Amino acid sequence: MSTATPVAVLGLGEMGRALAAALVKADVPTTVWNRTPGKADELIASGATGAASAEDAVTAAEVVVVCLFDHASVHEVLDPLAQRLRGRAVVNLTTTSPEQARELGRWAAAEGIGYLDGGIMAVPAMIGTAGSEVFYSGDEHVFQRHKEIFDHWGTSTYFGEDTGLASLYDLALLAAMYVMFAGYMQGAAMVRTAGISASAFAARAQSWLTAMTGGLAGFGAVIDGGDYTVPGQQSLAFSDLTKMLDAVAELGIGGQPLAMVQELIRKQRDAGYDEHGFARIYESIAAPR
Amino acid sequence: MSTATPVAVLGLGEMGRALAAALVKADVPTTVWNRTPGKADELIASGATGAASAEDAVTAAEVVVVCLFDHASVHEVLDPLAQRLRGRAVVNLTTTSPEQARELGRWAAAEGIGYLDGGIMAVPAMIGTAGSEVFYSGDEHVFQRHKEIFDHWGTSTYFGEDTGLASLYDLALLAAMYVMFAGYMQGAAMVRTAGISASAFAARAQSWLTAMTGGLAGFGAVIDGGDYTVPGQQSLAFSDLTKMLDAVAELGIGGQPLAMVQELIRKQRDAGYDEHGFARIYESIAAPR
Ligand SMILES: NC(=O)c1ccc[n+]([C@@H]2O[C@H](COP(=O)([O-])OP(=O)(O)OC[C@H]3O[C@@H](n4cnc5c(N)ncnc54)[C@H](OP(=O)(O)O)[C@@H]3O)[C@@H](O)[C@H]2O)c1
Ligand SMILES: NC(=O)c1ccc[n+]([C@@H]2O[C@H](COP(=O)([O-])OP(=O)(O)OC[C@H]3O[C@@H](n4cnc5c(N)ncnc54)[C@H](OP(=O)(O)O)[C@@H]3O)[C@@H](O)[C@H]2O)c1
Repeated sequence: MSTATPVAVLGLGEMGRALAAALVKADVPTTVWNRTPGKADELIASGATGAASAEDAVTAAEVVVVCLFDHASVHEVLDPLAQRLRGRAVVNLTTTSPEQARELGRWAAAEGIGYLDGGIMAVPAMIGTAGSEVFYSGDEHVFQRHKEIFDHWGTSTYFGEDTGLASLYDLALLAAMYVMFAGYMQGAAMVRTAGISASAFAARAQSWLTAMTGGLAGFGAVIDGGDYTVPGQQSLAFSDLTKMLDAVAELGIGGQPLAMVQELIRKQRDAGYDEHGFARIYESIAAPR
Repeated sequence: MSTATPVAVLGLGEMGRALAAALVKADVPTTVWNRTPGKADELIASGATGAASAEDAVTAAEVVVVCLFDHASVHEVLDPLAQRLRGRAVVNLTTTSPEQARELGRWAAAEGIGYLDGGIMAVPAMIGTAGSEVFYSGDEHVFQRHKEIFDHWGTSTYFGEDTGLASLYDLALLAAMYVMFAGYMQGAAMVRTAGISASAFAARAQSWLTAMTGGLAGFGAVIDGGDYTVPGQQSLAFSDLTKMLDAVAELGIGGQPLAMVQELIRKQRDAGYDEHGFARIYESIAAPR
């Protein structure tokens, strides 16, 4: 039964096409629409139904998957269809900020539309493979009822009724990833001064950083506890990166990623927390609580 | 035979004591010395020999392990003993910059002293356990001859005759680690705005970042190849973090780690490389080549 739920996919960019293709492959009845014509051709050839308008696509479906450019384009496409969408479920996989996701959730609730917001932790080529995960938040009923459909894209993880959660988790993990990548680049630039290749460093960095992620749980516990003086921590004074930054300068390269960390440390040391644990750099970023 | 090589440990701070204790435990004949008396007591009780002076310690040993505060303290302790050290092997595990390690290597060579520089990738409590690794560079003969002794501290990895390599690798990996930690803090501060604990985020970040280290080899290959236009890369334009930084600002928290990455991206985009791959941020850090 549930595999026979008719689905519409609005937006056939790189990601929308991958999402629709995974549904078609799983024999989910799929109607597709894109603003600019032509992008649906391959999908239609493999079994999807093409719709001439977004309204036609929505009318044919019980679950409406949206994968457009941004928050504004979602409103542009969905606003005129509000009445048609009433009683249907919208699953918005367009990247938005947490606040924008919450706004869309409120809009949908006011219009009587079931709304689930999603964050795709994959690139298009990964959709439907083991490494793909999609985060969801918002209307739990919609998630539970249609999870089998979502599972065709990868692991489906639901975070809660706060519609902004999926986007927030998505952004937070991407942020951590980009910063980690910059950390790798810092190290690669350092060893390169001695003729060591970035590939050789990547192999070492991969296992080292993987091992060091083992320390995150400890930081989390200290941050949540709110007491940065619990014993067994590396102190902020010990963590001072002055010597390391000097060594980097001596190598004749930039030290931007490391200097950023040093600024987080310095802010706390300037406030008198030399002997507090390193986890306290969290306070240089977080909002006052 | 080789386990009977007499070893001296100069410097009994947190780390020096852990190194000496691992040797004593492995029945290596170990003579210990520290500038300030008293720190050797426990080691002597468990089987080490105390020396009244650094010179006495050196005289009793074939391999001299040095674990002091910094480069200057190493010279302060070793310079007066240069003649005594001739024909012996010095293994310096004090943290120094790569250039300082090279300087010590040149000094030792001029004095006829075998010299190996080391970088300890562990905290004192880890010494002798499976997770501990020590990097070495410099005199390969010293490394091969005494590796069995070093293995009592953890995995022993030799990088090459360039004396600065161990320190360079050590610093580069620590740099990458600190930056990754800051990335975790950025993400933790973001999810915290929705009441998600830093511990809950740590669990997610650990598996996510571990998975994402799988991307480092690809960056390494592109950087080494020197062609940032090879297909299949995420472009710098696509990687632009403006929207993510806006979302962070919307949450009312700091975005320092992310802003650092954005600066690396912007520098390359300003130079006209919008369509080059993300790995190009390496060039914002590296020395011109
Ligand atoms: N690609 C990825 O790796 C990835 C990963 C995770 C999340 N996402 C997210 O998925 C979403 C789509 O990404 P994508 O890679 O598929 O982007 P894309 O290839 O650039 O496609 C964008 C789509 O949005 C449509 N669109 C834009 N503005 C519109 C408007 N005002 N009205 C109607 N349609 C509009 C475009 O239609 P036209 O063809 O008519 O221009 C196109 O179908 C984005 O929010 C992105 O952040 C992508
Ligand atoms: N602890 C770690 O987690 C760790 C990890 C990796 C590497 N390391 C490196 O290991 C080295 C030692 O670290 P540690 O943790 O053992 O430091 P520590 O506990 O502060 O001990 C420093 C040692 O250096 C001695 N010292 C300092 N200046 C001296 C001088 N001018 N002459 C003679 N002795 C002097 C001190 O002797 P007194 O007792 O007389 O002051 C003490 O034995 C450092 O280079 C550190 O970076 C440490």
